[in-house]
Amino acid sequence: MSASRFAAIDVVDVTDPDDPRVDDFRDLNSVDRRPDLPSGKGLVIAEGVLVVRRMLASRFTPLALLGTDRRLAELQADLAGVAAPYYRVSAEVMARVVGFHLNRGVLAAARRVPEPDVAQVIDEARTVAVLEGVNDHENLGSIFRNAAGLGVDAVVFGSGCADPLYRRAVRVSMGHALLVPYARATDWPAELKMLREHGFRLLAMTPNEHAQPLPAAMAQLCDQQVAILVGAEGAGLSEKAMRGCDLRVRIPMSRGTDSLNVATAAALAFYERARLAP
Amino acid sequence: MSASRFAAIDVVDVTDPDDPRVDDFRDLNSVDRRPDLPSGKGLVIAEGVLVVRRMLASRFTPLALLGTDRRLAELQADLAGVAAPYYRVSAEVMARVVGFHLNRGVLAAARRVPEPDVAQVIDEARTVAVLEGVNDHENLGSIFRNAAGLGVDAVVFGSGCADPLYRRAVRVSMGHALLVPYARATDWPAELKMLREHGFRLLAMTPNEHAQPLPAAMAQLCDQQVAILVGAEGAGLSEKAMRGCDLRVRIPMSRGTDSLNVATAAALAFYERARLAP
Repeated sequence: MSASRFAAIDVVDVTDPDDPRVDDFRDLNSVDRRPDLPSGKGLVIAEGVLVVRRMLASRFTPLALLGTDRRLAELQADLAGVAAPYYRVSAEVMARVVGFHLNRGVLAAARRVPEPDVAQVIDEARTVAVLEGVNDHENLGSIFRNAAGLGVDAVVFGSGCADPLYRRAVRVSMGHALLVPYARATDWPAELKMLREHGFRLLAMTPNEHAQPLPAAMAQLCDQQVAILVGAEGAGLSEKAMRGCDLRVRIPMSRGTDSLNVATAAALAFYERARLAP
Repeated sequence: MSASRFAAIDVVDVTDPDDPRVDDFRDLNSVDRRPDLPSGKGLVIAEGVLVVRRMLASRFTPLALLGTDRRLAELQADLAGVAAPYYRVSAEVMARVVGFHLNRGVLAAARRVPEPDVAQVIDEARTVAVLEGVNDHENLGSIFRNAAGLGVDAVVFGSGCADPLYRRAVRVSMGHALLVPYARATDWPAELKMLREHGFRLLAMTPNEHAQPLPAAMAQLCDQQVAILVGAEGAGLSEKAMRGCDLRVRIPMSRGTDSLNVATAAALAFYERARLAP
């Protein structure tokens, strides 16, 4: 379907940084509310051409966009048929509105949407990632980026995770936090049982040297649905969560080193899963 | 050898934030000079108990340490025999000296040391990482952490890389930037020829879909020395560098996604190498 079938987006020039029409983008650094809570608050913000494109492909519908003329030109085809205004500004006005210099040149703002529950996101999944205590937005964003790239179908949040729709998480995820389905466990870690009832084998990632090495563990599970559990850096998965799993798995590592970054460890497990059960 | 054979470290209480004896730690955010240049400048700073321990195990000899009494207690055994003063301060004085609140509670400062050349660091190596255009300190630090954990013996810098001894790179590396041997190519990418003359097979990581998939490519090289080349995110390796390589290798990825973070891509290649040639 060609873009020309749709009406062009409504472009509105804004020259006054105090114009109330761009209030959704104002002082972005200070309006992010409670990103430390998994439920988050506030609008979902996409930054940059690539992430705005992913928002347009996602379940989040932009209320408005704010950006330079150059970014409008790059996004023209993607924006055809989008029922939201594009507030066209100079780079200077943009910096005044958002409160800092943002070199990506375009933002889109969308309302949050109701979230699916765990049963819904795992329904047709073969591989899911389950996170506990991942309260760092960059790690959270990286995990979504890695999940999208390495064949993970959905993400389930246990306790202690931060908001995946927080601006920084969305940015680091390259927009995949808007696309990879996710849900929050409401009863943690008891809800792990539901994953098992859906046919998943639960694999707990741990640096413990008595755990099974990743390649051998994953090789046993080629024909099965797999849930890969990772915990916060440092503490790792809680013993309660580990006890709800079928096997404990470690990444073979050099002597004298400690654990890897949680998003890196997750990437290695996702990679091994994709390699063995493509 | 027990720590008690060595003299205890010299502890000096400092209560005045303007005391010139702690000048090496003053205004850390503003004194980092030219971290964008591979050669870097300024002192090497280790932050936190774990990284200070790694500095003590490295070729960098602390000139002085600055920290709280609590961190002194944790480091007591490690510091026996260290010929540098421990400036003991309150958390408040520490924040005043360094210019911000630093919750790791202890710092060590060391002078830079002469760097080995490429021939020296690859001499006994089986697996090396070669970086081009990695100018982000977090990515650089992550690559060192991943290299240490996943069996890479040395790192070689091509053109366009940042300073691995910059404070943030050292911190993100968990101190492994101080331990994993590295050297800079002086003639890039011509110096890749030297790696080949030393018996290395050169493997260029690229998102190009015509490249060989990682598992198959790495499986051919089990018995050989391997150099894994990674380039900056976005641009990737230069065509010049790629042409100096033996094979082009891609990480199998899901449709509609783009490349992974450079440190994550490197980790997957290191992991695959360690899995197939332990």
